[in-house]
Formats: sequence, C-alpha cells, structure tokens
Amino acid sequence: MRPIKVGLLGLGTVGVGTVKILRDNATEISRRAGCEIMVTHAVVRNIDKAKAQGFDIELSTDASTVIDNPEIDVVCEVMGGEEPAKGYILQAIANGKHVVTANKALIAIHGNEIFSLAQDKGVMVAFEAAVAGGIPVIKAIREGLAANRIQSVAGIINGTGNFIMTEMRDKGRAFADVLAEAQALGYAEADPTFDVEGIDAAHKLTILSSIAFGIPLKFEAVYTEGISKVSSDDVQYASELGYNIKHLGIARKTQRGIEMRVHPTLVPKRRLLANVDGVMNAVLVQGDAVGPTIHYGAGAGEMPTGSSVVADIVDVARTLTADPENRVPHLAFQADQIEPLPVLASHDFETGYFLRMQVEDRPGVLADITAIFGKHEISIEAVIQKEPEDHESVATLILLTREINEGAMNDALTALNGAPSVVGEVSRIRVETLA
Amino acid sequence: MRPIKVGLLGLGTVGVGTVKILRDNATEISRRAGCEIMVTHAVVRNIDKAKAQGFDIELSTDASTVIDNPEIDVVCEVMGGEEPAKGYILQAIANGKHVVTANKALIAIHGNEIFSLAQDKGVMVAFEAAVAGGIPVIKAIREGLAANRIQSVAGIINGTGNFIMTEMRDKGRAFADVLAEAQALGYAEADPTFDVEGIDAAHKLTILSSIAFGIPLKFEAVYTEGISKVSSDDVQYASELGYNIKHLGIARKTQRGIEMRVHPTLVPKRRLLANVDGVMNAVLVQGDAVGPTIHYGAGAGEMPTGSSVVADIVDVARTLTADPENRVPHLAFQADQIEPLPVLASHDFETGYFLRMQVEDRPGVLADITAIFGKHEISIEAVIQKEPEDHESVATLILLTREINEGAMNDALTALNGAPSVVGEVSRIRVETLA
Repeated sequence: MRPIKVGLLGLGTVGVGTVKILRDNATEISRRAGCEIMVTHAVVRNIDKAKAQGFDIELSTDASTVIDNPEIDVVCEVMGGEEPAKGYILQAIANGKHVVTANKALIAIHGNEIFSLAQDKGVMVAFEAAVAGGIPVIKAIREGLAANRIQSVAGIINGTGNFIMTEMRDKGRAFADVLAEAQALGYAEADPTFDVEGIDAAHKLTILSSIAFGIPLKFEAVYTEGISKVSSDDVQYASELGYNIKHLGIARKTQRGIEMRVHPTLVPKRRLLANVDGVMNAVLVQGDAVGPTIHYGAGAGEMPTGSSVVADIVDVARTLTADPENRVPHLAFQADQIEPLPVLASHDFETGYFLRMQVEDRPGVLADITAIFGKHEISIEAVIQKEPEDHESVATLILLTREINEGAMNDALTALNGAPSVVGEVSRIRVETLA
Repeated sequence: MRPIKVGLLGLGTVGVGTVKILRDNATEISRRAGCEIMVTHAVVRNIDKAKAQGFDIELSTDASTVIDNPEIDVVCEVMGGEEPAKGYILQAIANGKHVVTANKALIAIHGNEIFSLAQDKGVMVAFEAAVAGGIPVIKAIREGLAANRIQSVAGIINGTGNFIMTEMRDKGRAFADVLAEAQALGYAEADPTFDVEGIDAAHKLTILSSIAFGIPLKFEAVYTEGISKVSSDDVQYASELGYNIKHLGIARKTQRGIEMRVHPTLVPKRRLLANVDGVMNAVLVQGDAVGPTIHYGAGAGEMPTGSSVVADIVDVARTLTADPENRVPHLAFQADQIEPLPVLASHDFETGYFLRMQVEDRPGVLADITAIFGKHEISIEAVIQKEPEDHESVATLILLTREINEGAMNDALTALNGAPSVVGEVSRIRVETLA
C-alpha cells in the first residue's frame, strides 16, 4: 500500500503527541497498518513557535494548505473549539477527505451536521480521542459490544475533576485549594469552568450516549452539575458511610426515556470505579449480554490522546478501499437507523441521595425530619448524627436514602429547607450503587 | 446489504448464547451492522438434545452441511478442542469462508497454520471470544492501541482460578474446598486441570503475546504454574503485607526477549487488578504512548462469550467487500511482519518473591537466613516472623524480596532448602507491583 499522508489542523498538545507517536513508533505502526503513515503538513497559528518543535513538516497559517490539498488523505483536527474547527472540517469533508478529530465540544454540539455531510460524501470522521483520552472506549462500545443492547454507561470522564475529588478525599483538602494546585500543575485550565462545572464531561457523555443508544447527539439535553459545591465535610461523611464521591457522567436507558446526567456521585468503595483515582478515567458500560465491562486508562495528555488519534488514523487508512456502506458507522448505528428517544428531565431521575444538614440540637428534631421523609415516601438507608461541638448549638445530620424519584426528593427538600429545626440549606449529592 | 448467513459448529454453552443474542437483539444488531445476521445451520453431536433448544435452525451431525455449504457466509466454531475443530476450520477456509471462533486452545496451538491458510485464501478468522470472554480486549490491543509499542500485558484471564483465589482470601478457605464448590457451581470442569494448573490461561496468554508484540503464536514457550499449591497461609500472610494473590498471565517485552508466564502472583492491594474478584477477568495493557489501560468484564459464560462471538460476526460482515489487504490483520501485525523474538527461560525472569518457610526457633536463625540472601545479593523488603504456637518448636518466617533475577533466587532457594535451620521446603510465590 502507498503511504498515507496526514495533515494536521493545530499543533498544540495533542498535535505534538500525534506527530511524536507517528515518528517514534513508525516501524511498529506500519507493521500493523501495512503502509507508512506520515504527517506532511500542519496548520498553526504561530509558525516560529511550531518550528521550534523541530518536526520535518510543512507549516502554514493557511488552513487550505491542508483541507484543500489533494495530496492529503486524512485531515486531523487537533485545534479544539467550535470555530474555525467546524468550518475547516466541513470543508475537508466536502473535498472528500477523511477526518480524525479529538474535539469533543465540536462533536457533541455540531456532530449531527458533520456526520450528515460525511455520510453524503462517503468519508470517515473518527473521534476516539474526543472521549476518555487514550482509552479505546468509543471502539469498545461501537464495535466490541455491538451485540448488546447497552443499558447504561457511567464514567469518570474528566481527569481534572477526578484529581480534585481524589485529593479532597485523601488529604481532606478544600475544593478551592486543590483546584489552585491543579491549575499550577497544568491539569486545569486558567478558566476551569469546563472541567469543574461538568461541561467537558457533558460533551463526552453526549457522545457516549449517542453511540450507546443509537440516538442523535443532544448536548443541550444533558443535566450538568459540577463539583464546586462539594465540601470536604461531604467527602468525609460519605467515606464514613462507605462511599467515595466521584464526578460521574451517567447515561441510562429506562422504559420512559434516556437519562443523561453529569454530577458528583457517591459510589460504594468496593466498586472498581470508586477506586479510579487521580487524573485517570474509567467508563463502566452495562450491556444486556456481556454484563458490566470497565475501560480504564489515561483520560488526557499529549501521548495518551495522541495514541487514540493515531489509532483512528490507522483505522481510516484501512478503510480507504472499503465500500462506504460497509464501514463502521460514525455513531455506531447506521445513519438511517439513528432515532431520537425521549430524554428525561431531572425530576424524573431515579437515584439514591446523600443529604447533609445542620439541625437544632433539641429533642424531637430527628422525629420531625424523618416524618418529612415518611410523608414523601422516601426510605432512609443510613443516618449519622454528629453531636454539636462545645461552642455550637447545631448538630449535623447525614442521611442516605434509597433510590427514589427526584421529583419526590425535590419536594422533600423544599419541606426540609422550610422546616424550623433545619438551619440553613440542605446539601444533596446523588448516590449510585453501580450494581 | 443482503442478510449474512452464519453456520455454527457446535451448539453448547457459547453456541446457544450466540443464537440467543442474534435472535433477541436482532433489531439492535442490524441497526448497527446495516444488514440482518442469521444463524441458519448448526452442526451438533446430538440432534434431539439440540432440538430441545427450540431454535429455528437446520440441525445436522454432518459438518459439511456448514463448512461446504455455499449459502453460509461465516462459519462460527464454538465446539472447542483441537480436533475435529481444526480440520473443520481449515476446510471452511479452503472453501473461502470467513471463520469466527471462541477456541483458545486451537488458536494458541494451531493458529499459525490456520492464519497462514486464511491469509492465502483472503478470508477473516476472528477470535475475540477466545480471550477473556466478553471483554473486547483483542480488539483493544489490535486496533485501539495500534499506535503503541506494547510493553506488557498482565491479566486475570481465568475466572475459575480467580473465583478460587477470591474465596480463599475472603473466607480463609482451603484450595481443595473451594475447588469442590466451584465444580458444584459449574465454574470448574470435572477435570479442573486446564483451569487450576494454568493451561487455559497459558492458551490465552499465548494469543495476547502474539497480538501485543507481533510474534508467532508459541504456546509451548509459556512458563505455566497453577494455583493448586497456594495455601490459605500464603493468602493470609500476603494480605498482612498488603497484597492479594492473583493468578496472572504476564507477557513482557524486555531488552533480552519476551517473558511469557502464568503463575500465582502477589499484587499490591491498592492496584485495581488486585480488586478484580470472583469470576471476573481483567487485562492490564501497558503501551508506551497510552500508559496503562485496563479492560475488565466477564471472562466466561453463555451470554458474555456470545457477545464477543457476535461482535466478531458483525466485524466480518462489514469487511466482506473490503480488499483483503486493507483488513485488520489476524494477529494485529501484517502477516509478513510477524517476527519471532527470543522467549526468556524462567531463570531469566525478573520479579520480586514472597517466601514462606518454617525455621527452628532458636537464636541466630534469622541471621543465618538473611546471610544466604546477602550472599546471593537479594534485597529483603519486608519480614514477618511468627512465633511458634505453644506445642511447636518451629517458627514461621515470611520474606518479601525486591526484584531479582530468578536464577539467583533459585540458587538462594537451593541454599535455603539445604540450610540446617530451615524445616521442610520453602514456599515461593512471585510478586509484581504492576507499577
């Protein structure tokens, strides 16, 4: 086979990783792919900065040197963001080029449009690197578990968030303190909103939901809650009850529709997912035939993400001569078989809840509070009552509920927050047993 | 696309799972594959028994009704064993049929011959179900991690063995006792040799090593040690030192050659692999770009193994029109790029060791023993000395060594076993930190 020529859009962290891997592992990769794969062009913002990398690549600030270049077989978009990445990719597809991208925001928000054009033009758009970095979880769901009706996906899919939760648990540190360190270490961006408010995880969950259930990408329907309100008290009390708090992306197919939600979650410590620490990612996929599978690895970084980009390039190289209708479909299901399903609003979720509240320290308070739960038909699974410190007049009450409809829980929370014996707001975190 | 017709060789546990999945998930599967996939024929030993399953399949005891049948697109071998499976598969390939198999012994022992013929005939032979049941780990290594130089693979790849080790640890039970229960539960065969002596794991490790390193299948070169000699004392003392004992298959590429070994192994409890319990499987793959990835799930059973068989059938269906040279190579590397590497003998392994011995209870014994280690330049990492029970005159000594060449350890063991203060044989189990 003739060599495959790759043009990069962007030469930042992931682009550099991609070039290094294709250079350093060239022999191993061509022994697998059956052909040479080479990066010949890169489009960059700053030529001088890019030159300093010392790669033997033609550099330009003009995107057309890649997307309109007849010598380029595969356009590899590793610049990130919505525009101009979207316009470049659409143009490349219109030119009949195959595309590999690591851009989760782009796929989550504009994927339906991109895949529709790719379908018309008979080209591949591959995006393994967009979810969970180096873990080949897109391929696992799309191909490895193709025999299954996927029931749910639950993942630690943001390394920054997981690093923060791990540090809070292991060292009893406060959220803001750990975030500052993560920024210093380069794990978190200067503006950490995407990571800590769950937006990045919601992008990835959008993609996972689509390939798991055969539904169109619908980012705006994902319920998203970040970790910035989780306190070290929550982490500590959860631990006493036998749980770690993880920031999970959860997609679940229920009889009434699809749940898509990103939020801090108590997970029993005995579960493998509860023990995925630091910047590592892991995705638990539940299929009706296979049961649970877990896919674990590095969720970010130059070389792990580059590993997924290069794997996609090899895949694309292999399908160059395949009849387009015989290729693996972009979103796991044939384009004409993707069907929307109702997406549940948060008040229709069913989960357990961990509640932490300050209550007056007087007889009868526990009875008042449990009466509220009884009235809303919420079963309590565990209670911890912490006596007030010497100088305080309030006690801390922690409750763990069984699985219940979130609408009912919201009603109970309204009642609790209005109850005379409850001081301040009740803090609430969802619980998943991941059984 | 026209429907794909599958003929089964065998209708035991895995065959039944395959038929059930293709029947029950037909809609979901054809939404993905873009065509219908149907089992039309099955070759069985006992027609009446097979009829009782109630499937709408033509049954025969004559293998030619599948392997020589021009209507069959994919021959699916789920009968197990070396012959007649091997003869049938070779005949099917000679007839130009694609093959899916769950037969690990067959691939490990006769795979080179089978893939060579398949290469000549331009057909696919897929075998995801042969390793780790429902976990798509063959696909992960072969395609998802194709960018990497794979450095090592370490897996819990025999569910029966892992069930036994888990019960021994959690309930302090003896090996023979748990094995009897596993047999009663149907986890272990009446003749449990393949499971407990590591032969089944060695078949799977052979396959993993080949696709990881691009070497021919070489089952006879795998060092294989079972779990039948692990005592509940070993399990208990390992736990005191912070380790679980797991039966691992390990393949590692070193500068001097490939290590391929199956043996009981102490793994630090903080590692995810140490917490994979019961009949579950997990494979840790270390790639130079991606770092560590773990692939976890059910390693056996009707539906999980059927899940992998069906995924392979979907893959094969998709490549029917692809140019054979553009397909994913059988063993991950192009046929002409598979190159033998030296395989290290056990005395060249480098691992840590856990040693348990009975020693005379008198002053100077510890000095005598540590002197032997010093002489062989073996560093001790931890020691536990258990005082004798009232009525005994021997103490128990447990030592954990740092990583050392196994030849040096064997010399030290010879010296220890000959030392006057050591009573009986020294028990030895390898240690891997899996860092």
